[in-house]
Amino acid sequence: MAEFSSADRNSVHVFAPATVANMVCGFDILGFAIEEPGDEVYMRRVDQPGVRLVGITGDDGRLPRETEKNTVSACVLTFLQHIGKTDIGLEIELHKHMPIGSGLGSSAASTVAGLFAVNTLLGNPLSKRELLPFAVQGEALACGHGHADNVAPALLGGITLIRGYAPLDVIALPAPSALHASVVFPHVDVPTRDARQMIRTKVALKDAVTQWGNIAGLVAGLFTADYELIGRSMHDVLIEPTRAILIPEFHEMRRLAMEAGALSFGISGSGPSVFAFTQNRDQATSITNVIQAHLSERGIESNGYVSGINTEGPKEIKK
Amino acid sequence: MAEFSSADRNSVHVFAPATVANMVCGFDILGFAIEEPGDEVYMRRVDQPGVRLVGITGDDGRLPRETEKNTVSACVLTFLQHIGKTDIGLEIELHKHMPIGSGLGSSAASTVAGLFAVNTLLGNPLSKRELLPFAVQGEALACGHGHADNVAPALLGGITLIRGYAPLDVIALPAPSALHASVVFPHVDVPTRDARQMIRTKVALKDAVTQWGNIAGLVAGLFTADYELIGRSMHDVLIEPTRAILIPEFHEMRRLAMEAGALSFGISGSGPSVFAFTQNRDQATSITNVIQAHLSERGIESNGYVSGINTEGPKEIKK
Repeated sequence: MAEFSSADRNSVHVFAPATVANMVCGFDILGFAIEEPGDEVYMRRVDQPGVRLVGITGDDGRLPRETEKNTVSACVLTFLQHIGKTDIGLEIELHKHMPIGSGLGSSAASTVAGLFAVNTLLGNPLSKRELLPFAVQGEALACGHGHADNVAPALLGGITLIRGYAPLDVIALPAPSALHASVVFPHVDVPTRDARQMIRTKVALKDAVTQWGNIAGLVAGLFTADYELIGRSMHDVLIEPTRAILIPEFHEMRRLAMEAGALSFGISGSGPSVFAFTQNRDQATSITNVIQAHLSERGIESNGYVSGINTEGPKEIKK
Repeated sequence: MAEFSSADRNSVHVFAPATVANMVCGFDILGFAIEEPGDEVYMRRVDQPGVRLVGITGDDGRLPRETEKNTVSACVLTFLQHIGKTDIGLEIELHKHMPIGSGLGSSAASTVAGLFAVNTLLGNPLSKRELLPFAVQGEALACGHGHADNVAPALLGGITLIRGYAPLDVIALPAPSALHASVVFPHVDVPTRDARQMIRTKVALKDAVTQWGNIAGLVAGLFTADYELIGRSMHDVLIEPTRAILIPEFHEMRRLAMEAGALSFGISGSGPSVFAFTQNRDQATSITNVIQAHLSERGIESNGYVSGINTEGPKEIKK
């Protein structure tokens, strides 16, 4: 192993964050990272060559255990092939701290944690941005489509724009410092594939114009820290009307959030998680509480989170 | 007339600029003002109450002469009704310096010149932004639809975003200082109404996603003065493929512009004018020259312009 630099290590423990894709008006192009929840990966160098997934917790046995089929280990393998280090031996443990199918970028957090871990372990041969194509490939394996709107913010942190896919063009957008998110995951089942299939493949041009006016307004609002503009731009006339049908109490949750002073409210990714933007943490806390209390009254369990924009992305957890 | 302040005047001479709407990817929401061409309005206070259009030059007799039907005088009338000064007497001369149906916001320039003139003449009872709804009403009269993507930049100057129409929400975007435009109007007839009717009313969602990724990229590029990002964002997969059919030599003009170093190239408004963005005036001049020379070879007359972004909008011409 003399070919590795002194930055090489024997083991690493990494956290990668959950993400909120779409940001209401920016279907398939916008997303941001939150502080929690997130997934953790432990990775160890071992003498026996090959990548082995030695343990997964928190997935209720739903994720594949085979190295080539699990997105974390599959992406690590592709990474090793790319840098020409397939003779290395690695053991991976994946600890999921958020539910699969929550709409919070569960697979993206796992994949990013794995890639950040292997890159750290090997002395950072690639930059964070250079890891992005590997993470997109992981999404293709996990979701059937190589979207980048969760992996980009999970990997780079902050708020990201996917300008285009051919070639992949990811732009970091500013995150105004007062912006906070209230995030609630109601325990109802909305598989990502079904949520995508419900969406019409044709849309009215006039609705598309409304949507891209809002997207342009949101980007301008982020650059100028104009919270009012951010709020009034975050409307979705195309996707939300369909997806909201799958989320019980959606319109009531919106009403509660907006009455409590939210700037905006909408679906996180393909749902069923929802989120609201506020201008401070206390307000985000109140909104998370009021939505969770309402769901509880209706007999729906949920997880609630309160977060600033996570501008860091993945990070090493040191003991 | 003692009710008017000392800022009141007996006559005013105003210029309002041509504008480039859509900016390639931002159909119906983006536009910018250029330095020339533009329209001029002379306005005089007279004793006899009422608004009279006493002369129009440069329109080949195509514009209506009746006060209520001509957009300039009709908007001035609406403005006077709004501020409660219908007892005033005004004579208006309109001098058009750009062709009708050029795709350069001809009616917007005239309307804005008229409104800016009457507001100046009466001591600025309204702000520029407050004049906007009157100008939008003028566009409805001239074009059959109250679009704001020409009147907003003609009135406010710079680059403007129409975030939404209900209510009208116009956002000023930054204009990076090096940005210059080459603009060419080929003398071929493409009526705005026909150009609009050719556009499909339904679009593929995946094309809409491509379009709004580009719009978000363009707005981000303007805020960060990232000229490369501005250039690679200015692509239109929805409208241009149809509208370009009506513009002879469109693809050849694009090729010439891009070969000469343009950041981007596209249709101005509904055409037939085209424009290219560059990072300096010399390059814009070269591109205007090479495109005009090509059109001339093909037997097509044209007008060519070279301009920075006009951040001022309408202005008084003082002798």
